[in-house]
Amino acid sequence: MEKIAVLGAGSWGTALAIVLADNGHQVRLWGHRPEQITEINHSHTNEKYLPGIELPTNIIGYSSIEESLEGTNTIVLAVPTKAIREVLNQVSAKLKHSITIVHVSKGIEPDSLLRISEIIELEMPGHMLEAVVVLSGPSHAEEVSRRHITTVTASSLNMEKAEYIQDLFINQHFRVYTNPDVIGVEIGGALKNIIALAAGISDGLGYGDNAKAALITRGLAEIARLGSKIGGNPLTFSGLTGIGDLIVTCTSIHSRNWRAGNLLGKGHKLEEVLENMGMVVEGVRTTKAAQQLSEKYGVKMPITEALYQVLFNGQSPKDAVDSLMTRGKTHEMEDLVNIMDNRSF
Amino acid sequence: MEKIAVLGAGSWGTALAIVLADNGHQVRLWGHRPEQITEINHSHTNEKYLPGIELPTNIIGYSSIEESLEGTNTIVLAVPTKAIREVLNQVSAKLKHSITIVHVSKGIEPDSLLRISEIIELEMPGHMLEAVVVLSGPSHAEEVSRRHITTVTASSLNMEKAEYIQDLFINQHFRVYTNPDVIGVEIGGALKNIIALAAGISDGLGYGDNAKAALITRGLAEIARLGSKIGGNPLTFSGLTGIGDLIVTCTSIHSRNWRAGNLLGKGHKLEEVLENMGMVVEGVRTTKAAQQLSEKYGVKMPITEALYQVLFNGQSPKDAVDSLMTRGKTHEMEDLVNIMDNRSF
Repeated sequence: MEKIAVLGAGSWGTALAIVLADNGHQVRLWGHRPEQITEINHSHTNEKYLPGIELPTNIIGYSSIEESLEGTNTIVLAVPTKAIREVLNQVSAKLKHSITIVHVSKGIEPDSLLRISEIIELEMPGHMLEAVVVLSGPSHAEEVSRRHITTVTASSLNMEKAEYIQDLFINQHFRVYTNPDVIGVEIGGALKNIIALAAGISDGLGYGDNAKAALITRGLAEIARLGSKIGGNPLTFSGLTGIGDLIVTCTSIHSRNWRAGNLLGKGHKLEEVLENMGMVVEGVRTTKAAQQLSEKYGVKMPITEALYQVLFNGQSPKDAVDSLMTRGKTHEMEDLVNIMDNRSF
Repeated sequence: MEKIAVLGAGSWGTALAIVLADNGHQVRLWGHRPEQITEINHSHTNEKYLPGIELPTNIIGYSSIEESLEGTNTIVLAVPTKAIREVLNQVSAKLKHSITIVHVSKGIEPDSLLRISEIIELEMPGHMLEAVVVLSGPSHAEEVSRRHITTVTASSLNMEKAEYIQDLFINQHFRVYTNPDVIGVEIGGALKNIIALAAGISDGLGYGDNAKAALITRGLAEIARLGSKIGGNPLTFSGLTGIGDLIVTCTSIHSRNWRAGNLLGKGHKLEEVLENMGMVVEGVRTTKAAQQLSEKYGVKMPITEALYQVLFNGQSPKDAVDSLMTRGKTHEMEDLVNIMDNRSF
């Protein structure tokens, strides 16, 4: 039984707190809004993020980061990518011992083009950081909180720590695999949100399942093309954190990136959509970052490019999807062979 | 403008006849039930298989195979796998010239363990057969008949003929790619129906999207493991005829294999399910063939094995799915690396 701090009391942080609590650990769930922490401690609920779910009593809410960190050797970092630097600054200012950080966010920082594990390594003093582990995979928080069967991957350059994290989380409903390919896991997790936005647009335009399957397949190809160029293992993109996460994000009503895309496809404006969602839509920032990465590395990413034009240059969603679907006759393997040319295994 | 015979007036044969007719070809649609042919020629509908769809008038129905073949150089073979040998015998008995056969069926023959293109080559006299082309991909007939955007792959050992077939079918809504890997395309198309049955069972049992995404991902891994062992290109399984077709079959309400699995998951008996469907459920026979292939080639296929136990040995669906999900802790890459050990590129 361990003391574990979960930083971020949104739907995913809270769902992971439930998994850890089910496994008998003492879970400290930190959030920055005091009224939410009061609700967690008094009603054992987090209605805004996980409606209808009763939280185990070994989850204690904290509104002070410092208090939540006391006596823990593991931190689960579950905040939106744009809040990560600020939260890490608070952590390193208050921390009195070294820790392992498990991050569960999916994104890439625009402009710096850093993955989350790279940001963590930059922001945390080296002597305080034992290891960074990424936990990723096809895992809607709502289903995890209801103990539906879910599989995820724990990835780290430090495989001993990855296996330690696997042991903390694994149970009958929540299966944890390990994978040493941090780059592939992080790139797959971040870029799937772009394809989910595009799939939502396709559905919002009234296109069918055949079109969506094509979009997901070609989306996987462009993610693998970029990811393997950056140094990820091409095989990772065929696994849980690649195609697995892509499928669940593109086909499930729980996915907020899909929902945002769906509204765009139905003709709503981006600002209006983001306002209505009331939660962070990571795919919008990630599209910007991926567009920059595709230019930096000279990798063709037609779906990302089309979405970038819709989100940031006012192109109509219909024109963007139609332009993707009416490119010249192609030999299917060309793209796939390009992926393998970058293979590093 | 070509004369093309489409043999098989089920939903897929009829939908492909519509694509060819839209492209201006003279399409002869053969079916073995005279009342259906009468309906096609008089009402320009095929209500049982494509309800609500009006057929173009350049589709003519034939109840005589011999007449349908006259003056054609291309046959589209769209009959269930178990009827293929019989229909080919009729074709070769009546044919007076050589032809290219495009097959669009998805299955493997139990016991002989032959792919469809192998059956065609065995049954047709060599001097009558110019080439065999496989047309496959994520393509529900209902959506194709409604001119929704769809992408498929034309695959042949004779790439010139594959490109000829690409030209016959391609239009604004129906995108055709080419791929020389016939083995990979046929194995992917056949085995996805097994995973669709399993995904339907998972949904029928009330499991969620996370579980289904895991099943599809692990299903792709076992398809690729077998397919590459047999000689398919591992990359093909990441393309339209692999993961693309798998996604659409496992997540769409149009899929009859998914629907059959769904009923099994809800507790109905196999005989009852097959009777209720009123159409062929290819996945049931394919499960038997794939189980035999996995033994023959010594390839681990846990999902196929579990489904085989449900379909043919009376195991309960819940026990089968639970046994899949509660195997020991695993290193995710082990399986994937095994695929690549068989790589032939």
